[in-house]
Amino acid sequence: MAEDSGMVDLRSDTVTKPTAGMRAAMADAEVGDDVYSEDPLVNSLEERVADLFGHEAAVFVPSGTMGNQIGMRLVCQPGQEVLGDAEAHVVTYEMGAAAAIFGLSTRTVVSTGGVLDADQLIEQVRPFGNWHLTPTAAIAVENTHNRAGGLVQPLAQLEKLYAWSRDAGVAVHLDGARIWNAAVASGVPLSTYGRLADTASVCLSKGLGAPIGSVLVASADRIAEARLWRKRLGGGMRQVGVLAAAGHYALDHHVDRLAEDHARARSLAQRLGVDPATVHTNMVVLDGVAAPMLAEAAKGQGVLISQVSATKVRLLTHLDVDDAGIDRAVEVLAPLL
Amino acid sequence: MAEDSGMVDLRSDTVTKPTAGMRAAMADAEVGDDVYSEDPLVNSLEERVADLFGHEAAVFVPSGTMGNQIGMRLVCQPGQEVLGDAEAHVVTYEMGAAAAIFGLSTRTVVSTGGVLDADQLIEQVRPFGNWHLTPTAAIAVENTHNRAGGLVQPLAQLEKLYAWSRDAGVAVHLDGARIWNAAVASGVPLSTYGRLADTASVCLSKGLGAPIGSVLVASADRIAEARLWRKRLGGGMRQVGVLAAAGHYALDHHVDRLAEDHARARSLAQRLGVDPATVHTNMVVLDGVAAPMLAEAAKGQGVLISQVSATKVRLLTHLDVDDAGIDRAVEVLAPLL
Amino acid sequence: MAEDSGMVDLRSDTVTKPTAGMRAAMADAEVGDDVYSEDPLVNSLEERVADLFGHEAAVFVPSGTMGNQIGMRLVCQPGQEVLGDAEAHVVTYEMGAAAAIFGLSTRTVVSTGGVLDADQLIEQVRPFGNWHLTPTAAIAVENTHNRAGGLVQPLAQLEKLYAWSRDAGVAVHLDGARIWNAAVASGVPLSTYGRLADTASVCLSKGLGAPIGSVLVASADRIAEARLWRKRLGGGMRQVGVLAAAGHYALDHHVDRLAEDHARARSLAQRLGVDPATVHTNMVVLDGVAAPMLAEAAKGQGVLISQVSATKVRLLTHLDVDDAGIDRAVEVLAPLL
Amino acid sequence: MAEDSGMVDLRSDTVTKPTAGMRAAMADAEVGDDVYSEDPLVNSLEERVADLFGHEAAVFVPSGTMGNQIGMRLVCQPGQEVLGDAEAHVVTYEMGAAAAIFGLSTRTVVSTGGVLDADQLIEQVRPFGNWHLTPTAAIAVENTHNRAGGLVQPLAQLEKLYAWSRDAGVAVHLDGARIWNAAVASGVPLSTYGRLADTASVCLSKGLGAPIGSVLVASADRIAEARLWRKRLGGGMRQVGVLAAAGHYALDHHVDRLAEDHARARSLAQRLGVDPATVHTNMVVLDGVAAPMLAEAAKGQGVLISQVSATKVRLLTHLDVDDAGIDRAVEVLAPLL
Repeated sequence: MAEDSGMVDLRSDTVTKPTAGMRAAMADAEVGDDVYSEDPLVNSLEERVADLFGHEAAVFVPSGTMGNQIGMRLVCQPGQEVLGDAEAHVVTYEMGAAAAIFGLSTRTVVSTGGVLDADQLIEQVRPFGNWHLTPTAAIAVENTHNRAGGLVQPLAQLEKLYAWSRDAGVAVHLDGARIWNAAVASGVPLSTYGRLADTASVCLSKGLGAPIGSVLVASADRIAEARLWRKRLGGGMRQVGVLAAAGHYALDHHVDRLAEDHARARSLAQRLGVDPATVHTNMVVLDGVAAPMLAEAAKGQGVLISQVSATKVRLLTHLDVDDAGIDRAVEVLAPLL
Repeated sequence: MAEDSGMVDLRSDTVTKPTAGMRAAMADAEVGDDVYSEDPLVNSLEERVADLFGHEAAVFVPSGTMGNQIGMRLVCQPGQEVLGDAEAHVVTYEMGAAAAIFGLSTRTVVSTGGVLDADQLIEQVRPFGNWHLTPTAAIAVENTHNRAGGLVQPLAQLEKLYAWSRDAGVAVHLDGARIWNAAVASGVPLSTYGRLADTASVCLSKGLGAPIGSVLVASADRIAEARLWRKRLGGGMRQVGVLAAAGHYALDHHVDRLAEDHARARSLAQRLGVDPATVHTNMVVLDGVAAPMLAEAAKGQGVLISQVSATKVRLLTHLDVDDAGIDRAVEVLAPLL
Repeated sequence: MAEDSGMVDLRSDTVTKPTAGMRAAMADAEVGDDVYSEDPLVNSLEERVADLFGHEAAVFVPSGTMGNQIGMRLVCQPGQEVLGDAEAHVVTYEMGAAAAIFGLSTRTVVSTGGVLDADQLIEQVRPFGNWHLTPTAAIAVENTHNRAGGLVQPLAQLEKLYAWSRDAGVAVHLDGARIWNAAVASGVPLSTYGRLADTASVCLSKGLGAPIGSVLVASADRIAEARLWRKRLGGGMRQVGVLAAAGHYALDHHVDRLAEDHARARSLAQRLGVDPATVHTNMVVLDGVAAPMLAEAAKGQGVLISQVSATKVRLLTHLDVDDAGIDRAVEVLAPLL
Repeated sequence: MAEDSGMVDLRSDTVTKPTAGMRAAMADAEVGDDVYSEDPLVNSLEERVADLFGHEAAVFVPSGTMGNQIGMRLVCQPGQEVLGDAEAHVVTYEMGAAAAIFGLSTRTVVSTGGVLDADQLIEQVRPFGNWHLTPTAAIAVENTHNRAGGLVQPLAQLEKLYAWSRDAGVAVHLDGARIWNAAVASGVPLSTYGRLADTASVCLSKGLGAPIGSVLVASADRIAEARLWRKRLGGGMRQVGVLAAAGHYALDHHVDRLAEDHARARSLAQRLGVDPATVHTNMVVLDGVAAPMLAEAAKGQGVLISQVSATKVRLLTHLDVDDAGIDRAVEVLAPLL
């Protein structure tokens, strides 16, 4: 749809379609049966991503939701809780999976603008061994923070939280669906972000442009357990090389170019009168608008945007939006604002 | 312990011991096998409590935790969420049961002093049928609110929330562990509180002085389902009449007298220099104290109090604290403050 | 009902009512708040039962179902399985609790007459670490076996299973609801039965005549974890001494007398033309009868019996059935057979 | 691996690799974001498969395990049970998922050779509304039956079970991972098999040769609920058209040709001295062999086979095994037998 049909689709970076090069890589992919651990491209992709984040091992999963949920399950037992931001994807957009399928409680703090505040979280942690309280086994961090407008979390806060967590016996899970955007925007190496988490889920779809696939990284023991949970959840697949090929291609070609998406987002903001300082990566948030009307009107003119609430919309730049797309978006949206 | 041994135990109203009259009632109780529904006193107690709250049916459970958790399960399915106050017993003191055993998500709002704010809750409700969000199936209300110092919830807010919930298709669960205190303090009939909830769990222990037992009230269909969950959780017991007799006795003799506990709590507050306006029912909260030291020192002199945090303690009046006990508590605590 | 009203109730040994002596013990019970671990009689009862079975620790629970389910949860994780007999109480009469509340799979073998066959079970065990199979973490043994007519399990088989399980890394859970009957009938000490299980749930109600209560025994670490699960399930109660007093009384007075129940069961069988060799403890099974008609007709004449299937009924002797009761039962049932 | 490298891989039909034509279809696939329901090929594939089985709707899932587990969850609630064959994939090879993630109990019967015996299952069904028993909400049928050697279930038994189930209020779930083989072997239309189940999971991988993908079919309401569970389990994916294209291609080109696999399996059996009457579809079972040694020796000569037990191996024919592969397998295996 979208681009092909002349639409400029700014709803999400999940809408990207595989490029010709990526499709060729998928079509030529050497494959094997991954349930027998015989798919060579999945094996090498898992190893590659584990290395990027400085972890021992990794496992390919069909979605970021599965990566996050299994990641949290590895560090939290039924009857314990994961603490996170009230706007975090894992508690907001994953349909109550933590509780429903794993028996994990989730509890949240209301941060200022989604910015990680280590002290605020630490203060809320509940101890093990109490006969009333649900113990806090893990803290979930989202970087970049989706509902906070693609925010890059401050490294100092990540460092502080992680250092504290070692003594406290609390684990840190990173929802790194868009960790690539964070790294490109901040210049912080992926391995640094990886070092500050016990488990991390990162997505090959979204900004990187693969059609399907996420990767969960952790220690070798935990990934061995993750493979069992993946199977149990129905995420064990067969000739996964066709997807892993897209993942490899995305890592080869689509990481550095995220800087372009970020630049376009800033440009789009500026041209729409939004303070570019509020653009952290590839998202532009328009607040104080009549969201349904604006989205409808824009759609009528070929520009798709996403309603976050009745008065807020979100525009995302990505692989399938070029400068012409930005021009067209401005042309359509500016008069409507 | 406590009283017998000369201690004044203000830690909680859960510490009350059955009185001589209650013990006699228990000793004389006619019993039958409740798993066969043949225990006459449990049957009549369930009917009695259902009537008090204007509901069709009720089921006896061994604890308030079981009453609350089954109550929420009746109106919320795995993958859906219960919304409540951040300080509510059901999310704070029940060890993550909702998620762990039933797959229910819990989400919270931070209210002002624990006071129910219908609009605040309503604004946070998430709709059914969305492919990302965990739908809000139920809202939990606690009355009186334990961690908010025995607060009686404003009737107008309860009415507003309930009225809204009818249209919204959202259920209301009442954690009425101390609903008796609310009714005695406010003059609002139990049946009014009952009318404003789909499911309600009320405790016969705590202020009412029974050693064991809570009752869950709801519609007849829901209570039939509750009985299955009670069995599954291991709450199906045999000659429950020995406990039901205590429950009947408590309802006969210990409801109206809660006014004495409330008066003693106000008096205790006043004599300790605490604003009596902060005493809603049977709890006195001392804030800004060195809690561990204070509790230790008081214990050394025969007065037991409860630490809520490092700087906060809680004193509860109940059946086993008479005027002399209050005098003694003041004698010990006043100099320490 | 029953006895009082002149009925002879042979449906189950769960119908026993507390004796005058037991009621007196309950009425005089010293109590405390067990949530604070301050109930002296529960503490001493837990210690006493742990000692009887040669385990480190024990926890009082409101029912055998809770004892069994928590016991299995201690030795089996979500995604693993408990293996047992197809007619075992834990898979037949506990409403799917293992799966529903804990995520444990149950799998069964069809034994010959309920007799434990160690080899049959061992052969069915599935290994850990396989990417398809549900690993067998525990085996559940029932002794005496309720649906197998109160059968006492052969000690040699228990020994063999347990010895094998040590090497295999598989745990053994004992559903010892009626382990007292097994010990009295076989002369095998309780400590021997206890030694052959990692976790064991034993009931104070049923043959021992307490109105409510079971005890789970295991290692100290496991019992610490069991206390958390008990709280989560809503089995944490307050002045439990009123029930623990009954438990102590039952252990003091009602264990050895089970031999009388067994003798009466044998006598009843003989007089009804049932081979006494089929009577293992306190149950008589009449097979090949028109169960609904027989039960109805007997009830009309004041004898209550239990239908196991359309062609099978079950008669249980217990504390509330004396020789006159047996005479009456024979008088009524013999002509009907 | 395998074929490419000169290996004849008879371990499973899951090892098939996408053909050139299928790869081309995947490379050219029009795609959209399936989380927004905008992937055209997934939409048309779901509609196509629903039509084939005469159901209202369908949903694409990443594996047969997810299809089966969600299918069972649609017709069974936590605390209820699914009854099936002791050798069924859903209870044997899916890692306890039903209990672990959904709270469903599973119970099994030991059939004769895996052949569906409606009466045997019906006799084991446990009723709703009993306060002890786990009610049987659904019966799972596997066709063809994997561990029974690719057995095609007798239509008369399927008809009988389904007819009974309507009155009984019990649902039927079909594990149709290899239903295509059943239809081709028996001549029974897919729509007939579909008509005899409330929910059915069918695989596009395995015999049909797609690299990834299964489809769950049911009523429109149930599939709407299935989409929520799929998201919760992490099975919601993005540009799924790349996989759906393979599914369409498989349905276009690889259904009728299963007859070739069946013929090759019969031929293989005959040439290895196995009674061809034991070959129902595409599997040959060799019993009474030294499985580990045989598998090892065969592998050394380029033929991969699967060990089912210590004395049993399994050979499967599929898309990637041609007549030359069969010749080679016979050449290698015959002398070893």
